[in-house]
Amino acid sequence: MERDKTEITFRRELANAVRFLAIDAVEKARSGHPGAPMGMADIAEVLWRDHLKHNPTNPKWPDRDRFVLSNGHGSMLLYALLHLTGYDLPLEQLQNFRQLGSKTAGHPEVGHTPGVETTTGPLGQGLTNAVGMALAEKLLAQRYNRPECDIVDHRTWAFLGDGCLMEGISHEACSLAGVWGLDKLVAFYDDNGISIDGHVEGWFRDDTPARFRAYGWHVVGPVDGHDAAALGAAIVEAKAAGKPTLIVCRTQIGWGAPNKVGSHDVHGAPLGADEVAATRAALNWPHAPFEVPDALREAWDARLSGAAAEAEWQVKFVAYRRQYPDLAAEFERTQAGGLPENWPEIRKSLLAVAGAKDGAVATRKSSQNSLDFLVDRVPELLGGSADLTGSNLTAGKGSRALHAAAEGEVPNYISYGVREFGMTAIMNGVALHGGLIPYGGTFAVFSDYARNAIRMSALMKQRVVHVLTHDSIGLGEDGPTHQPIEHAASLRVIPGLDVWRPCDELETAIAWSEALERRDGPSALLLSRQNLPQYGGEASRAEGASRGSYVLAEADGPAQAVIIATGSEVMLAMQAQTALKAQGVAVRVVSMPCTRRFDRQPASWKNAVLPPEIARVAVEAGQTDIWRKYVGLDGEVLGIDEFGESGPAPALYQHFGLTADNLVQTVLRAVVRAGGADGDF
Amino acid sequence: MERDKTEITFRRELANAVRFLAIDAVEKARSGHPGAPMGMADIAEVLWRDHLKHNPTNPKWPDRDRFVLSNGHGSMLLYALLHLTGYDLPLEQLQNFRQLGSKTAGHPEVGHTPGVETTTGPLGQGLTNAVGMALAEKLLAQRYNRPECDIVDHRTWAFLGDGCLMEGISHEACSLAGVWGLDKLVAFYDDNGISIDGHVEGWFRDDTPARFRAYGWHVVGPVDGHDAAALGAAIVEAKAAGKPTLIVCRTQIGWGAPNKVGSHDVHGAPLGADEVAATRAALNWPHAPFEVPDALREAWDARLSGAAAEAEWQVKFVAYRRQYPDLAAEFERTQAGGLPENWPEIRKSLLAVAGAKDGAVATRKSSQNSLDFLVDRVPELLGGSADLTGSNLTAGKGSRALHAAAEGEVPNYISYGVREFGMTAIMNGVALHGGLIPYGGTFAVFSDYARNAIRMSALMKQRVVHVLTHDSIGLGEDGPTHQPIEHAASLRVIPGLDVWRPCDELETAIAWSEALERRDGPSALLLSRQNLPQYGGEASRAEGASRGSYVLAEADGPAQAVIIATGSEVMLAMQAQTALKAQGVAVRVVSMPCTRRFDRQPASWKNAVLPPEIARVAVEAGQTDIWRKYVGLDGEVLGIDEFGESGPAPALYQHFGLTADNLVQTVLRAVVRAGGADGDF
Repeated sequence: MERDKTEITFRRELANAVRFLAIDAVEKARSGHPGAPMGMADIAEVLWRDHLKHNPTNPKWPDRDRFVLSNGHGSMLLYALLHLTGYDLPLEQLQNFRQLGSKTAGHPEVGHTPGVETTTGPLGQGLTNAVGMALAEKLLAQRYNRPECDIVDHRTWAFLGDGCLMEGISHEACSLAGVWGLDKLVAFYDDNGISIDGHVEGWFRDDTPARFRAYGWHVVGPVDGHDAAALGAAIVEAKAAGKPTLIVCRTQIGWGAPNKVGSHDVHGAPLGADEVAATRAALNWPHAPFEVPDALREAWDARLSGAAAEAEWQVKFVAYRRQYPDLAAEFERTQAGGLPENWPEIRKSLLAVAGAKDGAVATRKSSQNSLDFLVDRVPELLGGSADLTGSNLTAGKGSRALHAAAEGEVPNYISYGVREFGMTAIMNGVALHGGLIPYGGTFAVFSDYARNAIRMSALMKQRVVHVLTHDSIGLGEDGPTHQPIEHAASLRVIPGLDVWRPCDELETAIAWSEALERRDGPSALLLSRQNLPQYGGEASRAEGASRGSYVLAEADGPAQAVIIATGSEVMLAMQAQTALKAQGVAVRVVSMPCTRRFDRQPASWKNAVLPPEIARVAVEAGQTDIWRKYVGLDGEVLGIDEFGESGPAPALYQHFGLTADNLVQTVLRAVVRAGGADGDF
Repeated sequence: MERDKTEITFRRELANAVRFLAIDAVEKARSGHPGAPMGMADIAEVLWRDHLKHNPTNPKWPDRDRFVLSNGHGSMLLYALLHLTGYDLPLEQLQNFRQLGSKTAGHPEVGHTPGVETTTGPLGQGLTNAVGMALAEKLLAQRYNRPECDIVDHRTWAFLGDGCLMEGISHEACSLAGVWGLDKLVAFYDDNGISIDGHVEGWFRDDTPARFRAYGWHVVGPVDGHDAAALGAAIVEAKAAGKPTLIVCRTQIGWGAPNKVGSHDVHGAPLGADEVAATRAALNWPHAPFEVPDALREAWDARLSGAAAEAEWQVKFVAYRRQYPDLAAEFERTQAGGLPENWPEIRKSLLAVAGAKDGAVATRKSSQNSLDFLVDRVPELLGGSADLTGSNLTAGKGSRALHAAAEGEVPNYISYGVREFGMTAIMNGVALHGGLIPYGGTFAVFSDYARNAIRMSALMKQRVVHVLTHDSIGLGEDGPTHQPIEHAASLRVIPGLDVWRPCDELETAIAWSEALERRDGPSALLLSRQNLPQYGGEASRAEGASRGSYVLAEADGPAQAVIIATGSEVMLAMQAQTALKAQGVAVRVVSMPCTRRFDRQPASWKNAVLPPEIARVAVEAGQTDIWRKYVGLDGEVLGIDEFGESGPAPALYQHFGLTADNLVQTVLRAVVRAGGADGDF
């Protein structure tokens, strides 16, 4: 009894150390969110000290548990935990919370702060990343574990608030977690009844436990989120549940602040000097700002226990490597993010096959042809589609769907259902977990649904391949809701995203190769529904395309104009070149499958492809503004600046003036304006 | 008993008329989705013939029921219903299904086909529009109905499939429908167990009834979706439920097709001649394609009953107008979409007050100042925020929140919770319903979450005002997840969306005025978190700003360069102008709050604002590509082409080089390049 009381007091003190680091850091920064760290500190204390498997001295240990703070605005909670348990995050960093260049950004950023597993802040996505991480763990365990040798065996823990649960993506992610039976996923719901607009009952009255049970989750609680014993019991129950588990924790936002507790005032602003003092008094915390007593520091320090845990795993892995050397080598390679050793040959063969292709083929089909070749050779590929497998053509010959996998079969393909945003943020989680390279398909127009997760894949520099088919009015009859007029343009402005719009099978294979080789960021592949011709397989095209833009068809004689085209409109450019030649006008055709790659080339390459003095015309079946960057004010752009229409694709191309004839006239206008001809043809 | 059997047979025949119109139209178009119309025809027959209140001869009757086909790919179901009940949609249109220029687009399009209430296809949004329509009905009933004079009293019915229920937006919308107690909303779930990737149990195992009960909905069923009597009873139960109701209808996709029924083959492709013949035989439908027997046509025709229903309402409305002439006038004005009669004076006063503003004010605060003025004067405004009311500053002095409204108070403000996509698609539904002008706020970066609904507001030409605050790195410490680097650029490429980025209180007031006056499309307001100076209230600015761009500060002498700036960076342009003047360089400052408006101006205006021969520099704290459209390849752009950072706003502006000093250097470079100076300063 006495011991219990002592333990309760000590645990509270440990949690208070987190609380005051958060309070003091927010106060010093004059900016930040103290409410969530204060409300969730007790939960964090129990989880991090009694259950979390991690090694602060090696944040990259493959078999560590993953911890995700989905309510990322509570970043100081995570920074305090990382600091106290022994990650490379010294006190000065906490004292520089939210300052430019510090390791303690306003929201947690993966790759920036040791121990941060994903960048959170956009609500609902952290939870969804966690589902992706737990999925990756499950798939890798199936793949690599052997009897009595489970080298993949870790849990994923997520903290989340009301905001995450209101967001639609929580529905998509948690429904899938239920279907997949992700029994090593545990989510802690910070059920504090407060969001920014005030008490949530005015806009959020879900019976959340019933909702999660409807997804096939196990639900524990509500438990008192400030009662360590109850929380400990809840976690033990969750671990044994055999299902993904939601622990509903009744908490008070800003717990410990005598006047502001339980109000939204404490959500996103410093407490203020008076309330900080009152909180210190109320919680009997006499220590100076940022000061943590040694006994508490010692009790928090997880470096020794973490190193021991990893050492134990290393022993296991050494035995595993001895018994399964090939599997172990593949595991280590894929964890490190390297492609197969024979990747150069794989790439070469892929491009040779693609370059030899003949006949009319949609680039979505060319993409499938690439996948037919790649899926077996790059086993870390994890494909999928948001319920459009047969349209996106994202399943290759070697693809084995998770939901249909036979006993003992290793699945490498996911039917995500009609959940574009969920799919994409899950892919981010899979990529962050490591060991797999996720790609997933939807219609290009519905990249809108997933847009912020595409952005997050770029911000987090993750190798995710976004397969976006039906990339223009060329999809035809489905009409304007399905025709991505502005999507090539709007995807290209996301920093760090390589957007590819290949024109034939060879460029599609190049795009796939480049996307897989790119280890520091995502790629989007914009692919046609309709068939397109092939332009042959000269080796020079591979180098040119990987540079983002190149001369596909040189002018017959000194060029009077350059036509820049992408994807399906390269065909129009080639037709126009022929027609113009007949009129005595020599035109160069430049294919520009990836504008961003081209932007990164040296001036010498840029000027060689687009000589500054020659008239320029761009053609693309999409919004035109972005092309002024390449043709300037004197050039011409042929595209579409209005919404599409429902009708057969050829009729639409005519209707919107995307024809070789029209392109010829456009080029002639540009040539005349540039003074390169006398205007009498 | 005999009568029952006859009735059952006849009802089935009526439904089969719908089925075969769908089958035949898809077959003729060689494109389309027969599965859903065949599966839902029996439900539609019961609803449309026994319960739907509508008048085919006046699709604009304000008190009609709204019908939404959220699974919009089943468009032929709706077209068949509209045709058979007597809307202006002749058979030839059905025979031209999915052809360019027909009234029968691949997915239903509002404004294009009489009787279509919203454009659907992007899954989940139709259902969410329906929630918005039911919300509008409820709010307008509160506003306008008087004892024994309920001029607003109609229902909203939605059809939806598995896809809509998998989408996250269904969670956001249905959670809110529960909170709001939208008891006149009834949704029919086409529970056929099939989506495009196959049998849904591989990726969708939600206990959907339990999920909806958790939202506070009433759930009926599962009922047999091919049993008219069961469906009728379900509808009667739904009408009396006092809550939003989901009727779970067990159906077979492609019902009636003997070989393809119940398979995803029938979802999105024509049945093919053989299966069409087999279906005709199986359903005993000997009629030629597109032929419907007269007895069935007669039983479907709703023109007389519809006209009678509306006439009854008109009688009621005449009495209402007599008793409440002001309310009736306001009702008629707002239903017609007109602004208050004294709008010109309102606008004038608003601009006068805004133009007289002094001191440093964030444009989000200026927006609130506009709303303080407008909310009481334009009573049809319906404001809201996705749980950021205190940050977006979307509540004006006259705003009364729905969740906090006192008895008898008319609410005009909604706390939507953390549901950006749901909020936006609900606003679309409110606008489509008519009688209210919705506006709603979130952080600009989270416009990503809502992006496809913003697009839909543009595609549907709806007057919705998207209030997007914290519009640049100027938000500071929250960091890159919250800093909208590429969002101004990516919103501007959506056809038909007017994106405003005002620089001060006057431009903000102009943006609000223009957004309200614009009846054929949405507007987005990008507003600063940080304070900005005021530039005075010359009347000429109002005309210039409404044209999208104008000379804010003329050069002192012949201009050697033009600086184009928007929003918060206008301040930098003004500072640079002063600094350059001190160096003897005369520079014009052009403010461009709305690029799209400027694009729509005649060449004379464009050339007057941006004289072709003068060096141009654009400055905006965002992605730069779009500015090449205005400065060309010879001009300069100062902006940000990478993700932001966490830190105080002034430090970030320094870090990213967005300073007056840097702008001065940039202008000088442009001037030198343009040959407008000798380069020795």
